[in-house]
Amino acid sequence: MTTSAASETAVVTTPSDREIRVERIFAAPREVVWRAMTDPAIVAQWWGRGNKLVIERDEVERGGHWRYVEHSPEGVHGFEGRYREVVPPERVVRTFEWDGMPGHVAVETATLEALDGGRTRLVSVSLFHTTMERDGMLHSGMEGGMNQSFAALDRVLATMA
Amino acid sequence: MTTSAASETAVVTTPSDREIRVERIFAAPREVVWRAMTDPAIVAQWWGRGNKLVIERDEVERGGHWRYVEHSPEGVHGFEGRYREVVPPERVVRTFEWDGMPGHVAVETATLEALDGGRTRLVSVSLFHTTMERDGMLHSGMEGGMNQSFAALDRVLATMA
Repeated sequence: MTTSAASETAVVTTPSDREIRVERIFAAPREVVWRAMTDPAIVAQWWGRGNKLVIERDEVERGGHWRYVEHSPEGVHGFEGRYREVVPPERVVRTFEWDGMPGHVAVETATLEALDGGRTRLVSVSLFHTTMERDGMLHSGMEGGMNQSFAALDRVLATMA
Repeated sequence: MTTSAASETAVVTTPSDREIRVERIFAAPREVVWRAMTDPAIVAQWWGRGNKLVIERDEVERGGHWRYVEHSPEGVHGFEGRYREVVPPERVVRTFEWDGMPGHVAVETATLEALDGGRTRLVSVSLFHTTMERDGMLHSGMEGGMNQSFAALDRVLATMA
């Protein structure tokens, strides 16, 4: 294992039969990671993994809505939800729904922890209504896509430091 | 027990620790009840229990969004969600969220069954992410409000028959 940020892979676990937990360390201070994850102009640079991302809405506050549309070679994919809780720079709780399975809603609780060396640990726990929905997400290729997004985030963070 | 529609009370049960089940019989044929529950112009006449209801969106199809805003003497309350499944005249699955608890989402599965005598049975099962959210809904006064809405729906159905 190297300490190069580019080699980081998210650790994905299933703490219960309706949850997915993701843990990933970023080589940037918490305030910088927070900004990269909540400023729509910066989110647009990494969330789509290199694909064009149109952020139609992103009201980062309790009750606010978000909607991202990714334009990939395979097609157009919309994602949306609503913010339940926003506590800078440490915690965001929001719902997540993909247009391809409308009305199937997960609740994502993302927590940022400041580590020594100016690094930050992200822990994101997604809770689904059913185990079937959770398993559908696990088998959707989300892990590969997420690691691509996080690698793109690494590159954006390097320019912000 | 009388057979007067005005005396009907919904039967509310909790089939699991994350669900609320509501059963209610209406004195109108299934196609009429379906229309009263899915035509926004008619929904506006009963859903608000006599309060003004502004239907900002109601796209009754898979993936469509809905948003109702009730203007009551106590204040303005917004409700919204997204349609997962629409099968006329028997089944609607949609999400339900109240602005007062944004990001807390229940999935409502409403089924209409045609009964003899031109009557219809509605069974609606709401699934929550947690027991706490389910209990919060149970203790919110939803049962009284719902019975008021259903009584208003009875009156609307009588004019449609």
